[in-house]
Amino acid sequence: MKLRSALTAVFISVCSLNTFAQDPDSLILRAVYSHSLEQGQAYEWLRYLTNTIGGRLSGSPQAAQAVEYTRNVLSSLGADTVYLQEVMVPHWVRNSREELQVYAGGKKTPLRICALGGSVATPKKGIRAQVVEIRSFEQLDSIGEKGLKGKIVFYNAPMDQKHVQTFHAYGEKGKYRYSGAKNAAKYGALATITRSLTLSLDNEPHTGAMGYDETLPKIPACAISTMGADALSKTIRENAGTEVELFLDCETLPDVLSYNVIAEIRGSEKPDEYVLVGGHLDSWDTGKGAHDDGAGCVQSMEVIRLFHELGIRPKRTVRVVLFMNEENGLRGGKKYAEVAKQKNEKHLAAIETDAGGFTPHGFTSEGTDAQRRKLHSWKKLFEPYGLYSWDERGGGADIGPLKEQGTLLLDLLPDSQRYFDYHHTAIDTFDKINRRELQLGAAAVASMAYLLAQYGVE
Amino acid sequence: MKLRSALTAVFISVCSLNTFAQDPDSLILRAVYSHSLEQGQAYEWLRYLTNTIGGRLSGSPQAAQAVEYTRNVLSSLGADTVYLQEVMVPHWVRNSREELQVYAGGKKTPLRICALGGSVATPKKGIRAQVVEIRSFEQLDSIGEKGLKGKIVFYNAPMDQKHVQTFHAYGEKGKYRYSGAKNAAKYGALATITRSLTLSLDNEPHTGAMGYDETLPKIPACAISTMGADALSKTIRENAGTEVELFLDCETLPDVLSYNVIAEIRGSEKPDEYVLVGGHLDSWDTGKGAHDDGAGCVQSMEVIRLFHELGIRPKRTVRVVLFMNEENGLRGGKKYAEVAKQKNEKHLAAIETDAGGFTPHGFTSEGTDAQRRKLHSWKKLFEPYGLYSWDERGGGADIGPLKEQGTLLLDLLPDSQRYFDYHHTAIDTFDKINRRELQLGAAAVASMAYLLAQYGVE
Repeated sequence: MKLRSALTAVFISVCSLNTFAQDPDSLILRAVYSHSLEQGQAYEWLRYLTNTIGGRLSGSPQAAQAVEYTRNVLSSLGADTVYLQEVMVPHWVRNSREELQVYAGGKKTPLRICALGGSVATPKKGIRAQVVEIRSFEQLDSIGEKGLKGKIVFYNAPMDQKHVQTFHAYGEKGKYRYSGAKNAAKYGALATITRSLTLSLDNEPHTGAMGYDETLPKIPACAISTMGADALSKTIRENAGTEVELFLDCETLPDVLSYNVIAEIRGSEKPDEYVLVGGHLDSWDTGKGAHDDGAGCVQSMEVIRLFHELGIRPKRTVRVVLFMNEENGLRGGKKYAEVAKQKNEKHLAAIETDAGGFTPHGFTSEGTDAQRRKLHSWKKLFEPYGLYSWDERGGGADIGPLKEQGTLLLDLLPDSQRYFDYHHTAIDTFDKINRRELQLGAAAVASMAYLLAQYGVE
Repeated sequence: MKLRSALTAVFISVCSLNTFAQDPDSLILRAVYSHSLEQGQAYEWLRYLTNTIGGRLSGSPQAAQAVEYTRNVLSSLGADTVYLQEVMVPHWVRNSREELQVYAGGKKTPLRICALGGSVATPKKGIRAQVVEIRSFEQLDSIGEKGLKGKIVFYNAPMDQKHVQTFHAYGEKGKYRYSGAKNAAKYGALATITRSLTLSLDNEPHTGAMGYDETLPKIPACAISTMGADALSKTIRENAGTEVELFLDCETLPDVLSYNVIAEIRGSEKPDEYVLVGGHLDSWDTGKGAHDDGAGCVQSMEVIRLFHELGIRPKRTVRVVLFMNEENGLRGGKKYAEVAKQKNEKHLAAIETDAGGFTPHGFTSEGTDAQRRKLHSWKKLFEPYGLYSWDERGGGADIGPLKEQGTLLLDLLPDSQRYFDYHHTAIDTFDKINRRELQLGAAAVASMAYLLAQYGVE
């Protein structure tokens, strides 16, 4: 596009800024957005968190470094309080061997895989067996023990491209990753390979949490890239009796002491009423945790900086929480809610940002009709910033345990198209972040935190 | 993010699909979107246009190849008519030498630049002179001939980060690229260097069109990257009398015969009323023209494919036009409108897609109140697909000349945050395109073309 058509738009843009500038809350939002876009620091903090510290799986040295780093940054931003909250977290390690060999037509071909988080290892000599391709749990059940005992199950259920919101596609097919191993173990299968949860066709295996049934054998479970899954499926179709050989040496070590990182700006009138903003500090170990969820952490930290720099001190307390262990245990979120309950801390609302550092489109919410009506009364304030999506229900994993105290839960809802291209892979790295998209998200959560802390919700 | 929170959303998603499925137009839009996301070809066409053909500046062999390629593809898609429309286009060539040396503090330092499109060359031995940093045309005028004669002007006016819509920031500062040389020539300057039009801080110079005043000397004009501009500014501040030496060997050759590529699906009831959908086939030569505007071309082509595959034949004719020479002349757009006028072709509406292959947020429009009311009556149909922006005025460059016949003009309005990271640079390449974002844009323009062609506008 050349210049001509862009010129007309400038005048309109300036006019619309003036229109919105009538209302004091509009002025505050405008200041928050301008400051975030022009002088925001979230992007630079994320550069350090990803490029210098790296992947931050619970229990890892990098997770400990991330706790120290973010505590130090938060302490420099003018918060009234910064502290750590102890939480014991699981400590699963991938180790070094992740290998899949396909035996068909007299040839041996390697395909790229990664262990799912929490998987047990294979024996040192690996597991070699015939592989059975499965499209659904219904098909698995119909084949049953007779067809699965002693075999390796290959779940090949592609995410549905038709969904506009990619999280809906993820929600549909995620069960094959989380419950695939236990469901296959029921029928005597020896291991599972699951098609990666992504809408892109590439060579990246996507890890993620999986769970065992304690009453059943624990079998090794891995993810294969979408291109690998297509290749394996083709091989199976063309070669009856195709076998695969799997090697994993991951293991679960004893739990480790870790921390949620917490910072507050105390309310001017009702300091004992809280509005929480948070993301999770842990990430998977395969990549650098840039979008998931380094982005959400630095956006939350930016709230403290923006409030301090702009002199915003709302009536209620705004508390930023960087949760530990969202990915494989949710121990941080559970611990936080438990302590809040013990201390009888009244949480009016909690905002989670854990869907990537992309252009924000709105907020999902979970609460009473009255709470959501109050929320929706602020819609107009966000329109100049491109936030129009308010109808979807839902409130994120880490803040979920607060629901029982009646807290209004919100998730920042960014553009979801690219999220699963990077999610839980080696390519969730800093270069996938656009500075302005990230800073727009920071401004959105800061603006929402301001309104909630200033006006409250029933 | 893990799976838990995504699961709730699935049920809601399915429900909302059902709700919208009541209305026949909703069903058609749903089919268009599903087909585009699942089986769309735009992404693969763009792969060829960028990776195999490459940058397609008017008059270049690549522009000619792009005409042939897109005509052939369109002919295979089931259009009723595919033809070429002759248009003479300018033929400017960059050639090989683009060099800037900075002389300060006894040192000589190269900085990366590129010629602006249409610039004259420097003499073979280059132009060496003192450089004067200028922040605005007002400052230029106040310095005047006394301070500028025999000097090289360095326009260093950063785009304003505060705008949420990045095109507004482009609209404000684009004048330094387009009119910088002629304004400096007035005061006897020898050449100009303009800070690149981007909101990112990187090492890419951004080219783009510039214009001369035929009554004034034509002086060479180049763009410098934003990092380069910051470095040059610092050098000037720290070293009084800093000089630069510029070498360019670009030139303008005689005009060349080229073509607009046109394809139609004839209307079932009013074939002589037209709804146009288009992008521009030419691009700058520095990169591959992926977002600008390969994306818009393949999205427009996808309209023909979608209509044919889904058996959609609206009442009025849908005409896809791939315009030649938007970037440096607009000859294709002007020629098209001229011929339409000669043939007395009634164009009800024209949709341009030339703002990048990113997630669509809505449409801008330019027309009568009645036309825009009709357009806005379809807003609800687009909400399930994330299109909420309808208020902004404006209709793109290529379709602009149709305005005088009262045509309703529309621009697809995609997310704008990343557009200027790539715009007119060497990094406007295929890897910057997300398949789903591109296909969502194709579905949006196809849906809008269907509604306009089916129901018309006054």
